[in-house]
Amino acid sequence: MDVNNLFRKNSIILLVEDNPDDVELTLRAFRKYNFTNDIIVANDGEEALEIIFERANNKKLKPDLILLDISLPKVNGIEVLRQIKTNDITKTIPVIILTSSNEEKDLVESYNYGANSYIRKPVDFKMFIDVVKEIGLYWLLLNNPPVK
Amino acid sequence: MDVNNLFRKNSIILLVEDNPDDVELTLRAFRKYNFTNDIIVANDGEEALEIIFERANNKKLKPDLILLDISLPKVNGIEVLRQIKTNDITKTIPVIILTSSNEEKDLVESYNYGANSYIRKPVDFKMFIDVVKEIGLYWLLLNNPPVK
Repeated sequence: MDVNNLFRKNSIILLVEDNPDDVELTLRAFRKYNFTNDIIVANDGEEALEIIFERANNKKLKPDLILLDISLPKVNGIEVLRQIKTNDITKTIPVIILTSSNEEKDLVESYNYGANSYIRKPVDFKMFIDVVKEIGLYWLLLNNPPVK
Repeated sequence: MDVNNLFRKNSIILLVEDNPDDVELTLRAFRKYNFTNDIIVANDGEEALEIIFERANNKKLKPDLILLDISLPKVNGIEVLRQIKTNDITKTIPVIILTSSNEEKDLVESYNYGANSYIRKPVDFKMFIDVVKEIGLYWLLLNNPPVK
């Protein structure tokens, strides 16, 4: 599929990730494939919740997509997910869990709390970029986002 | 990404679609890319619910992925989605809305009832096959399915 220039360039992505290497790889993939100009990075769960609910409560543009790690400082990703998916204003935002966790508990809880998708981070550097690319293609090009 | 032989070939997909042309195109795409051998087709919403809950209640293998049209005979897709997502046994199954609808109401209701993703069917035949391919790649290769 020719995807050049088809992206919604004004999409807002919130990346919730405390590992600087993973932040850098994700940003690199998004820049490389020209997905969007607007990526917000939150380095812990508390910061993520502040960003999401400050926007929601002040009727500012919400993120179109949230990439959410599970193991995070301050507030963990499952709790961030739970708060997003139990609030009527924020529950429709697609949340993709992107984690290194191999624990079945994390997988089960993520789906139970309404994660839209759950993806394990590849260990390999090139595979990681590929996976982020596929996530961007799917959620920013193919999927129809909820109404803002 | 080299995806050959990486698929979970035993994945069960439930396709809920009343239009025979769309059924044929979807099956063709899945066969072409060798996604799975096990696709169940339900031609209306009532049949879809019977298949899903008969499996769930008898502890048989649930579908790994549901592709769900909205405009369906007997029980419409939004009601099928609502019943899937309000039942503890079935709510974790990824449900992808695949529809020709351009109505905002359908988009809003789908996300409100917990659709994992919402995709508009392309009118063009080749594009339709491409989109089904991308759905298969994402949900059967990249995404980690919920525990059965």
